[in-house]
Amino acid sequence: MKARIHVYLKPGVLDPQGAAVAGALKNMGFDEVTAARQGKLIELDLDGSDTAAAEARVDEMCKRLLANPVIESYAVEIE
Amino acid sequence: MKARIHVYLKPGVLDPQGAAVAGALKNMGFDEVTAARQGKLIELDLDGSDTAAAEARVDEMCKRLLANPVIESYAVEIE
Repeated sequence: MKARIHVYLKPGVLDPQGAAVAGALKNMGFDEVTAARQGKLIELDLDGSDTAAAEARVDEMCKRLLANPVIESYAVEIE
Repeated sequence: MKARIHVYLKPGVLDPQGAAVAGALKNMGFDEVTAARQGKLIELDLDGSDTAAAEARVDEMCKRLLANPVIESYAVEIE
């Protein structure tokens, strides 16, 4: 079983990496870019086949390690 | 218009961040985790409404800046 976790900064939190990406793209002539945000994409290989249990466990992994609840939000997909 | 770009390491390329995530999760008791991979998720806000043109331009952005073609692969979604 695979879990895909998208971790991204909460709205309003300063995103220096996103700002750097947007600035660099504009300098390269990509003027259509108005804003950029950069987050993390974590893929986990999991033993087992119970997707509901896996979703709960991955949620716990996010709360305890993979996402900083103060400034980050996350979304979990189990495949 | 929004573009979502998933940048991830090519198979076979050493992924120290992924290894660190997997190791930490096991140390915390999440034994069902057998492997982890970490990539980047970049969201761009774009002017314009021509999705085909946008896809081509974002592909060029990936080739020139957002992904390292030697060790990374990328996938583009236009919304």
